[in-house]
Amino acid sequence: MTTQMIILNGTSSSGKSGIVRCLQAELPDQWLAFGCDSFVDALPARMRDADGGIVFGEDGAVSVGADFRALEEAWTEGIATMARAGARIVVDDVFLGGAQSQERWRRALGGLDVLWVAVRCDPEVAAGRETARGDRTPGMAASQAAVVHEGVSYDLEVDTTHTESLTCARTIAAHLARPAMPWVLSSK
Amino acid sequence: MTTQMIILNGTSSSGKSGIVRCLQAELPDQWLAFGCDSFVDALPARMRDADGGIVFGEDGAVSVGADFRALEEAWTEGIATMARAGARIVVDDVFLGGAQSQERWRRALGGLDVLWVAVRCDPEVAAGRETARGDRTPGMAASQAAVVHEGVSYDLEVDTTHTESLTCARTIAAHLARPAMPWVLSSK
Amino acid sequence: MTTQMIILNGTSSSGKSGIVRCLQAELPDQWLAFGCDSFVDALPARMRDADGGIVFGEDGAVSVGADFRALEEAWTEGIATMARAGARIVVDDVFLGGAQSQERWRRALGGLDVLWVAVRCDPEVAAGRETARGDRTPGMAASQAAVVHEGVSYDLEVDTTHTESLTCARTIAAHLARPAMPWVLSSK
Amino acid sequence: MTTQMIILNGTSSSGKSGIVRCLQAELPDQWLAFGCDSFVDALPARMRDADGGIVFGEDGAVSVGADFRALEEAWTEGIATMARAGARIVVDDVFLGGAQSQERWRRALGGLDVLWVAVRCDPEVAAGRETARGDRTPGMAASQAAVVHEGVSYDLEVDTTHTESLTCARTIAAHLARPAMPWVLSSK
Repeated sequence: MTTQMIILNGTSSSGKSGIVRCLQAELPDQWLAFGCDSFVDALPARMRDADGGIVFGEDGAVSVGADFRALEEAWTEGIATMARAGARIVVDDVFLGGAQSQERWRRALGGLDVLWVAVRCDPEVAAGRETARGDRTPGMAASQAAVVHEGVSYDLEVDTTHTESLTCARTIAAHLARPAMPWVLSSK
Repeated sequence: MTTQMIILNGTSSSGKSGIVRCLQAELPDQWLAFGCDSFVDALPARMRDADGGIVFGEDGAVSVGADFRALEEAWTEGIATMARAGARIVVDDVFLGGAQSQERWRRALGGLDVLWVAVRCDPEVAAGRETARGDRTPGMAASQAAVVHEGVSYDLEVDTTHTESLTCARTIAAHLARPAMPWVLSSK
Repeated sequence: MTTQMIILNGTSSSGKSGIVRCLQAELPDQWLAFGCDSFVDALPARMRDADGGIVFGEDGAVSVGADFRALEEAWTEGIATMARAGARIVVDDVFLGGAQSQERWRRALGGLDVLWVAVRCDPEVAAGRETARGDRTPGMAASQAAVVHEGVSYDLEVDTTHTESLTCARTIAAHLARPAMPWVLSSK
Repeated sequence: MTTQMIILNGTSSSGKSGIVRCLQAELPDQWLAFGCDSFVDALPARMRDADGGIVFGEDGAVSVGADFRALEEAWTEGIATMARAGARIVVDDVFLGGAQSQERWRRALGGLDVLWVAVRCDPEVAAGRETARGDRTPGMAASQAAVVHEGVSYDLEVDTTHTESLTCARTIAAHLARPAMPWVLSSK
């Protein structure tokens, strides 16, 4: 069966976006990329730092409200439709709700063949990359480290602590390309 | 009936994005914004300036290929799903195919209440704003002027040549807010 | 005499950057562009929203501290050196200190031929453009309107309220190009 | 003696900007950051991809012309003035001319205490990071690898192939902070 979607989950500054761009460069088909950053860009500016919207605390904690969740729900269904309509999609997300976030995606993606990928990174290293980027609130990576993988199940895990984005992307791509061998127990 | 989507069509540098941000600021509900720029951002980098993808000519002409069209089709259906799922959506697009581009949207949006808005701008003024932005290929606005409105039908037209984005947005918002008067022939 | 520097002063969202890019496109020589935005980009991230650095208040008010002023002083002298070394420079600034800000530039620019340009814009229109940009704290334009031109003297004034950036740039360029007529009282 | 300037030299995508932002975060004083990217941003848009300006070839090769060199010369002198006026400056550059590029800086920086730092990175790893960034012409890193360190002398070398930006920055910062020990032969 053909993978129709790849979902990467990891903390802020764990290296998801770099892996996404490498996947788009390496995979033979053309994949569309969406994620929490492009979703937040689509929101009204007034929803940033507002009750009901998304709040970036000074300590790096991110919290989201009811309006955010309602729009995100609709957005998720739209992404699922794109995949059903034949576009291959790679999504990078930060599962602030852990297993619940995965469940939300699963409800929308029913019937699609999805590859779930954990993007792990040592929290101290992620915090250092946060400093190197210069455009993120210090502390985001650390404050998310405890929750994003909580109870989430994956097909594959990559770790950017000591591995380059391109190498992680190739690991993921190799997993996709694996020829079907019906006499072997599928990993999915 | 409630407007579920607003689609703005106009050339590059005609002022669509500014109107979108003003609409998001002015409208009482929370509207998501998508458009040709966010779609192109979702494409693999290798599809920019590639056959099958999207090519930005040195003279400002933009042409798109089969891979681009296939992904755009799926994207359009996904946007329609988001609207059907309850999110209000404002889209800004450049109808390079004129009436055909509108027809493509219409097929995907069946059953949704859509407000079609022309964003017009004197081509010479748009070319000047292109220079003022500094990040667009000179000539894009001019090369698109002849085709984007060709055969397209609208509910409303705004012209940014002498009118600010915020004023245009308020004109559009007023049109949405118009109370239903069943004894009057609806404009839609 | 040849103009070596052009300094544009006006509130946030008054249209300075657009005029700068049009000047760079229209003027026959190659002009370097610097300004308060590029200076702030050069600061350590930690100086943004910090005492001693630059604070963007929720109401749009901007205040700067001693560390900011000390670095700005050095930066100003460096810009002057670039002009003395033969580069033509256009600077856009927000004179938060009014006449004192101009005096600070004058001390550094001694001996250089500078064209001082006011970039005016109706505060309500500037506030609307702030909304259309979406990336500025609402209220910046309004909070600066009263102070930036206070006691400042100019060679030329442009007003973007009803005039495009390119037209303003051409007005400035025409002023520069004016042939020297020693028997006429110079405007400078 | 106190280090007044730090100059980092390395290929595109070798990790210079990340180190710069970490240095600004880690060093006790406030350091201004400038570099080849901010210089190119200051140029007229028409100088990009133009004879006399800077040309980014499709294979990633970058070549610069006479107008570029003349403005860069003036810019370099201006940066030196900022340092002499008391601002601490960190510069990241790509020495396309190898030792000649260093010589150009040295002429401008006479009398200043400068720390010269090589930022090395395995070319294959840098090429992978180029892909992960998605906004650079593929091939830039590789095409620069052979020339940028040619004949250049350094006080310190860091290598980002297996070392994080923050760790590299701390190595550099430690070098600056080293207390003067007059009975030991200084490394500078």
